[in-house]
Amino acid sequence: MKPGQLTDAEIQIALTQVSGWNLEGRELVKTFSFSCYLAGIDFVSRLAFAAEAMNHHPELFIGWRKVSVRLSTHSSGGLTQLDFSLAGQADALMGNQGTTSPEPV
Amino acid sequence: MKPGQLTDAEIQIALTQVSGWNLEGRELVKTFSFSCYLAGIDFVSRLAFAAEAMNHHPELFIGWRKVSVRLSTHSSGGLTQLDFSLAGQADALMGNQGTTSPEPV
Repeated sequence: MKPGQLTDAEIQIALTQVSGWNLEGRELVKTFSFSCYLAGIDFVSRLAFAAEAMNHHPELFIGWRKVSVRLSTHSSGGLTQLDFSLAGQADALMGNQGTTSPEPV
Repeated sequence: MKPGQLTDAEIQIALTQVSGWNLEGRELVKTFSFSCYLAGIDFVSRLAFAAEAMNHHPELFIGWRKVSVRLSTHSSGGLTQLDFSLAGQADALMGNQGTTSPEPV
């Protein structure tokens, strides 16, 4: 196990501290829904700046009024606290501007 | 065949008028590479505004200094002139800020 990589038990605890995020393999994934297309783009821009500040960049998929965020720490081969920190920032950026959606974009 | 949908022959002609775009099924796809992460985000923002103005929205995948653009006209069940128009706008937005890459992000 590489430095920083969370154990399965630690991941389960961390998952209780964020809302609507799902594990897919070794990735943390959530799809956000928006009332209009450009609201999703604004979310992406703000999340990207937060990611750049952390030097920890998510994969982002932009669809029609939906944005999927996919987090992992490639250098650690799994999930780390960085991923959960960025997940929390994504949720905070949303505020009341959108809703989350369980289905993929 | 639905209104507006290009024939295979028309698609082949249109492909000669854009650079670096590939057909994947009924979609027009290109991956753009950037010198830094935020340059890719800036490209996405500008392309999104162009897309909104056309009311024709691409699927966008943002990776590490790479952005994949995937175009199709769902209402027509295939490719239309709208897709090639937006492809041309994406290329124009790039200017000299980035290079194109054949590999997926």
